[in-house]
Amino acid sequence: MRGAVIHAPGDVRFETVDDAKILKPTDAVIRTAVTCVCGSDLWPYRGVVPTGHAHPMGHEYVGFVEEVGSEVTAVRPGQFVVGSFATSDNTCANCRNGFQSSCLNREFMSTCQAEYVRIPNAQGTLVATEDIPDERLWPGLLAVSDVLGTGWWAADAAEVKPGSTAVVVGDGAVGLCAVIAAKELGAERIIAMSRHESRQKLALEFGATDIVSERGEDGVARVKNLTDGIGADSVLECVGTEQSMRQALHSARPGGNVGFVGVPHDVAVDGQELFYSHVGLRGGPAPVRRYLPDLIDRVLTGSVDPGKVFDLTLPLEQVAEGYRAMDERRAIKALLKP
Amino acid sequence: MRGAVIHAPGDVRFETVDDAKILKPTDAVIRTAVTCVCGSDLWPYRGVVPTGHAHPMGHEYVGFVEEVGSEVTAVRPGQFVVGSFATSDNTCANCRNGFQSSCLNREFMSTCQAEYVRIPNAQGTLVATEDIPDERLWPGLLAVSDVLGTGWWAADAAEVKPGSTAVVVGDGAVGLCAVIAAKELGAERIIAMSRHESRQKLALEFGATDIVSERGEDGVARVKNLTDGIGADSVLECVGTEQSMRQALHSARPGGNVGFVGVPHDVAVDGQELFYSHVGLRGGPAPVRRYLPDLIDRVLTGSVDPGKVFDLTLPLEQVAEGYRAMDERRAIKALLKP
Repeated sequence: MRGAVIHAPGDVRFETVDDAKILKPTDAVIRTAVTCVCGSDLWPYRGVVPTGHAHPMGHEYVGFVEEVGSEVTAVRPGQFVVGSFATSDNTCANCRNGFQSSCLNREFMSTCQAEYVRIPNAQGTLVATEDIPDERLWPGLLAVSDVLGTGWWAADAAEVKPGSTAVVVGDGAVGLCAVIAAKELGAERIIAMSRHESRQKLALEFGATDIVSERGEDGVARVKNLTDGIGADSVLECVGTEQSMRQALHSARPGGNVGFVGVPHDVAVDGQELFYSHVGLRGGPAPVRRYLPDLIDRVLTGSVDPGKVFDLTLPLEQVAEGYRAMDERRAIKALLKP
Repeated sequence: MRGAVIHAPGDVRFETVDDAKILKPTDAVIRTAVTCVCGSDLWPYRGVVPTGHAHPMGHEYVGFVEEVGSEVTAVRPGQFVVGSFATSDNTCANCRNGFQSSCLNREFMSTCQAEYVRIPNAQGTLVATEDIPDERLWPGLLAVSDVLGTGWWAADAAEVKPGSTAVVVGDGAVGLCAVIAAKELGAERIIAMSRHESRQKLALEFGATDIVSERGEDGVARVKNLTDGIGADSVLECVGTEQSMRQALHSARPGGNVGFVGVPHDVAVDGQELFYSHVGLRGGPAPVRRYLPDLIDRVLTGSVDPGKVFDLTLPLEQVAEGYRAMDERRAIKALLKP
């Protein structure tokens, strides 16, 4: 079969790779329906995370079950399934607590930009739809498996409640999906921080009520100005830099919450500053599995349309162009079709 | 009048100070019933926080209203009142959100080890009891105004729920009161981390089910051992050092919560570590005012007895001996009677 392999920064190739196959009785193999390039894939592409040796890429997928291991009974060949970038047995103590992305048997996906994909922990990871969904819904379901699930977790961790005020820091696909989540969870005012016109437009379409284009302390001042001078109830941090985290913490009101879902790179939080801010902080890899049934339903019924974050569609074999377009900010997120 | 004044590290004197008087129409003056020495008073006493010039000390008090400013109608002369180390108008946006210790007009108390005390923001800060409580309840009501209120906040911030597992890091008066709070909020298992026999005994009396005397990663390993290997639902951090914070974060399970109430000294939290831990973190100066009516009631009805943290009682004029006894760990907490 063929799939994407990164050889060095800037060098992603579509080439022959090992066939996806059942290695453990808890595995499944799926035929990829659609996959995509993630903002986090740009870390190795840009050389920020080193690439020691060539390896496959991709952690987002929806597809058709091709084969299941002997212990997998929850899904069967032919079904359309949605999963998560973090696999989970969905039975361990952490899974039962709703933190499937901290599953004691977790394996992170990393070979999904390919024609077929092996899914570990298939029993606890995959959720099948009742019927094969219409193809126009596949991008939305693909978004559920990562960017919407992550945006939802940001809103959940930031404790967005009906009638509350939410700020979203970051206008990538996750930030834009976080706007959807804040809206669905009932936030009355949703302030999207974005400097890019096309993303501002999508944020407004997804439910943002205000756009703040300033960054850093100027951005914080604008947020305070929009929130009675005290800051927002919930701040959804969807970037992961020191600057974005500071901006998020300073934008929350005393007693408010920051949910942070951008993997932090060189971020340290000062204990005394956090103390006197009275701000609650929670983040981590999204427990997408917890949200899957609900989010799949919202996409299938059309109440949300996160597939709109894909503003570029390419044949899977042109995966390298997907990386280039996102790296050069010509695209928010690239959808790949085998 | 007379009160405690710190002149230099180790040098606290009971001497003549300016009379407490009404300076603003929102002030009240109380005659001190009982006051005490706080663990945090030891920071300047030990020279960790510099003493630039001589100044009064103390932020814990219960007493009798002596005089009120023209805008104070909630309490009247002769009443017995309980307050908080942080004063609040109880009307601003932060107060309405339940974070009175971030009141926009907050003034921290700092002159309470004295015969009389001026209380700013008296209208929003002081809560009067219906009758004059029996003198044996005064220590418990004094504890409510700071250490029990702070322990309660630790349990609240750590989201202690009925049936949950709680770990308390720190066996000072606040940590011991945090045990009371965890018990009252329904924790089924309460693990107190303490190396001192007298404090272990009081922790058990207050409701602790397990004592862990190991510190650092050994202590964490013991906690994991007692909690199905994954860690506790809630951890109440009542110290404020880098070591205690690390111990607290590592003792919580994925999806668990750390409430931190010890003022952090040189503490930095690594963003990526917090991310992958899935632990929620919230702290700050306790919003004692939010809890006052409930906690006063629990003391008056005898359902809790936090006054037991006072294991040394001295005449106010011997305040210097109170500092010495606590500094030398001869006492958990020193009660002072004018």
